[in-house]
Amino acid sequence: MSRSGEFEIIERLLAPLAGEGAFSLSDDAAVLPELSHGEAWVATKDAMVAGVHFLADDPPDLIARKLVRVNLSDLAAMGASPMGYLLAFALSPDCDDDWLEAFVAGLAEDQRIFGIALYGGDTVSTPGPVTLSLTALGRVERGRELRRNGARAGDAVYVSGSVGDAALGLKCLQEELAVSAGYRKTLVDRYRLPEARVRLGPALIGSATACQDVSDGLAADLGHIARRSGAGMEIEADLVPISQAARAAIAAGSGLETLPFTGGDDYELVFTAPVDAVLPDVGVPLTRIGRVVAGDGVRFMSRGGEISLRQAGWRHF
Amino acid sequence: MSRSGEFEIIERLLAPLAGEGAFSLSDDAAVLPELSHGEAWVATKDAMVAGVHFLADDPPDLIARKLVRVNLSDLAAMGASPMGYLLAFALSPDCDDDWLEAFVAGLAEDQRIFGIALYGGDTVSTPGPVTLSLTALGRVERGRELRRNGARAGDAVYVSGSVGDAALGLKCLQEELAVSAGYRKTLVDRYRLPEARVRLGPALIGSATACQDVSDGLAADLGHIARRSGAGMEIEADLVPISQAARAAIAAGSGLETLPFTGGDDYELVFTAPVDAVLPDVGVPLTRIGRVVAGDGVRFMSRGGEISLRQAGWRHF
Repeated sequence: MSRSGEFEIIERLLAPLAGEGAFSLSDDAAVLPELSHGEAWVATKDAMVAGVHFLADDPPDLIARKLVRVNLSDLAAMGASPMGYLLAFALSPDCDDDWLEAFVAGLAEDQRIFGIALYGGDTVSTPGPVTLSLTALGRVERGRELRRNGARAGDAVYVSGSVGDAALGLKCLQEELAVSAGYRKTLVDRYRLPEARVRLGPALIGSATACQDVSDGLAADLGHIARRSGAGMEIEADLVPISQAARAAIAAGSGLETLPFTGGDDYELVFTAPVDAVLPDVGVPLTRIGRVVAGDGVRFMSRGGEISLRQAGWRHF
Repeated sequence: MSRSGEFEIIERLLAPLAGEGAFSLSDDAAVLPELSHGEAWVATKDAMVAGVHFLADDPPDLIARKLVRVNLSDLAAMGASPMGYLLAFALSPDCDDDWLEAFVAGLAEDQRIFGIALYGGDTVSTPGPVTLSLTALGRVERGRELRRNGARAGDAVYVSGSVGDAALGLKCLQEELAVSAGYRKTLVDRYRLPEARVRLGPALIGSATACQDVSDGLAADLGHIARRSGAGMEIEADLVPISQAARAAIAAGSGLETLPFTGGDDYELVFTAPVDAVLPDVGVPLTRIGRVVAGDGVRFMSRGGEISLRQAGWRHF
């Protein structure tokens, strides 16, 4: 195996990804583009470690794209539209040029899909696992960003798309779960290459009262909104949208019924809105799953009773 | 030893460092403050790995402050004034709460010194060495940022402060060099806690034609300016400013005469300016060390002849 030096990696692989103001990565820093009047920059930063946040033998292009999307999801949760990013990678000894080229091809593909550019970064070596850190920058109308703290008793609770696929996909990759090849691919793809709801987030400005993305798991992430808003939530477990592949996997496994509520990595958006709010149609299904109540905590209900998320035998379909 | 969970680390240690728009780190992302009319955001990102960019047993507060300053130095090299930063840390199993508290105290101290705020970040675990990544954000008058590509034949070449201390300090820490306790402290301090020339960089706008910081070493970093500017440089080796501690260390060691030209981590600024430019006085010594010439490459000269940076026996004092 062989690996290019830092300068060659930058000039040959990364410079072609650089946006205006990043000067082909020739300088110490980048000058960010000018926003429209009234817009503000939004910044977020997530890190991923091989063996912790992705599997070391995951395809490198998908590792890159997941890293991008995890961060764009954070921007979307604030209602921000993505503009660009800075990337730091600490490369382990077994990242050769093939790995790097595939990784960079993944970056290029998602830059194209999301209309974003590379603004800078750093490439270093580590004797440990591959460690990646990305800072994503987006824009939002100043003062209108979506926050976690605006949910009010009486609001409805919504989630986009469906939840549970990513956690079940990870179980497939870890060979803890066996499903048909088609369902396995659906679930694994969802784990490795989440959507980032970049159009939905900005479109929710004006209707959502609170928003956040589902990274830690539906229950935990709803809990963040509840706590920051000083309110509670009642979620109708039977209303939570679950894909056909996830239903098949839950049926094939054992004790997985509540995994869609606790598993992470779905990168859907959860949000609250007044019950009479008109929700945007950007081609992403939105499902009303519950309501904001006075009090605190998030309770999952079924047929009038609360269910425990540790209650493995509960079946919601 | 014990270590708090991610949420406790964020709420107890990091939230108090958060700036306006970072919402006490309660949300997915931060909304950056509004700049004055005509100003642009400048962004840079550097990563550091224990055992590679710092020593694992370096004091944690100094690791934090070096990480901050390395990035602020990149902003200064573009003429930008620092505003804030996002931080990702991947913590190894041996980072306990004591380590974390000292690290955060270092961040707080440099926030105070440089007038900057925390805008966000991520805290994860790694089975490998501590890996840190910081994105620094600053501001500059749009279109007036300092670049590397503006040096012109006939310009003078300048460096701030003095060079060589950091590389010699690292040799002291690695016990490859023995000097008196006072000099050792000076050199080691310089390695562990570099200055960042945050006032000099912005003050050079209007006089410097090209600028960059000394991170890879004087010769390498002058080489970046020369290459990007399509010019060459002749540096008078005897004019390069070297501290008394460095002179003593070079005399005490063997073959260290050219280390101030090749050693990294000084975080001074090197810049070019027309010979008749009036340079700013911000309390940092500026030394003219050479000139920009037609051609390419960086040559170090002494008494009319070129010296080799691998020529260990050359003595410049």
